[in-house]
Amino acid sequence: MKQAGGQGTLFVISAPSGAGKTSLVSEMLRQDSRLGVSVSHTTRPMRDGEQDGVNYHFISRDEFEAMIARGDFLEHADVFGNYYGTSQVWVRETLATGQDVILEIDWQGAEQVRRLVPECVSIFIVPPSAEILRQRLVGRGTDAPEVIERRLSEAEEECRHAVEFDYLVVNDDFAVALADLLAIVRSQRLKMATQQVRHGELLRDLSAHG
Amino acid sequence: MKQAGGQGTLFVISAPSGAGKTSLVSEMLRQDSRLGVSVSHTTRPMRDGEQDGVNYHFISRDEFEAMIARGDFLEHADVFGNYYGTSQVWVRETLATGQDVILEIDWQGAEQVRRLVPECVSIFIVPPSAEILRQRLVGRGTDAPEVIERRLSEAEEECRHAVEFDYLVVNDDFAVALADLLAIVRSQRLKMATQQVRHGELLRDLSAHG
Repeated sequence: MKQAGGQGTLFVISAPSGAGKTSLVSEMLRQDSRLGVSVSHTTRPMRDGEQDGVNYHFISRDEFEAMIARGDFLEHADVFGNYYGTSQVWVRETLATGQDVILEIDWQGAEQVRRLVPECVSIFIVPPSAEILRQRLVGRGTDAPEVIERRLSEAEEECRHAVEFDYLVVNDDFAVALADLLAIVRSQRLKMATQQVRHGELLRDLSAHG
Repeated sequence: MKQAGGQGTLFVISAPSGAGKTSLVSEMLRQDSRLGVSVSHTTRPMRDGEQDGVNYHFISRDEFEAMIARGDFLEHADVFGNYYGTSQVWVRETLATGQDVILEIDWQGAEQVRRLVPECVSIFIVPPSAEILRQRLVGRGTDAPEVIERRLSEAEEECRHAVEFDYLVVNDDFAVALADLLAIVRSQRLKMATQQVRHGELLRDLSAHG
């Protein structure tokens, strides 16, 4: 996991729900061992099958608010009465080992992260059409019309912020979208600033008269 | 070849000789049909097996100097008494169709292109060690020591300008270096500014209340 020198890249990935973000990110993590994903803190109750420290770090409102007060979060949000947030410590320590980190957050979290980590790389994922998004959000089962309506307006609100991101990936074909995401990650590692740290000695050797 | 709207990206690829640039670029062109390579103009004599318009556009010194005077070149150089240059017309017309274009030029050409096309993406390719570079440049056959010496100092001079490029690719394993180059090309196409043109209607549909 530890790389030879250099700082990892922080990738912020956002999408409207129904875009396939979660499946894409978990496949990215499976295929690229130099990628890690941040486990968020939350105050919502643990659900069946969830594990503390795996799905989330489950903490109390008091603990969460103390962390906010200390400036411990890279980003946090209050979603329908439950707090969600990304701790700075783990992210910064992991980046310092040279590993890349993915944050799966919404546009508001992305905005907060850009302020604290301006060198982050942000990616927005969209479904191939508004109709497909609608089908995915409506067709989940037996939800009440107002729940579906809220989901749709949240998705639209999220998409209105797509242009604030560095990259746009259209998830029409899963394999293509996955290859797109992996190419973005790979290309960041080849940027001169990163490579100069990693291959500094090679560059010096090649330029010096032997 | 024609893409749905949008402007192609101009990729500038430089390397010391012996880094494997030419083989890598020809494999990139084979694998990615959205990439084109610019055919340079030159005043040097045509060699056996070469074709006008394929390897180079072979023109006279008078014609070349008239083109310089008209500002027709994106970059040009005088290399040991022969002119070499990249015509702006073909490059700009090809980019306008949405196709990406690769220029294989040296650091001085890259510097000229950056001034005229600041949005170009430049990539520098290096061999995995100074020793391997030396072997490749020395071991080509029965060249005179001063020819070898000149080749080595040119390679060193070229490498001193590596840091001016956007990306660095180390050609240790050909397949890895090729995948690196293709990832850089692929990721450029996913940049928001490019994607906004290509998927403008989709982004509008996704953000509008249906």
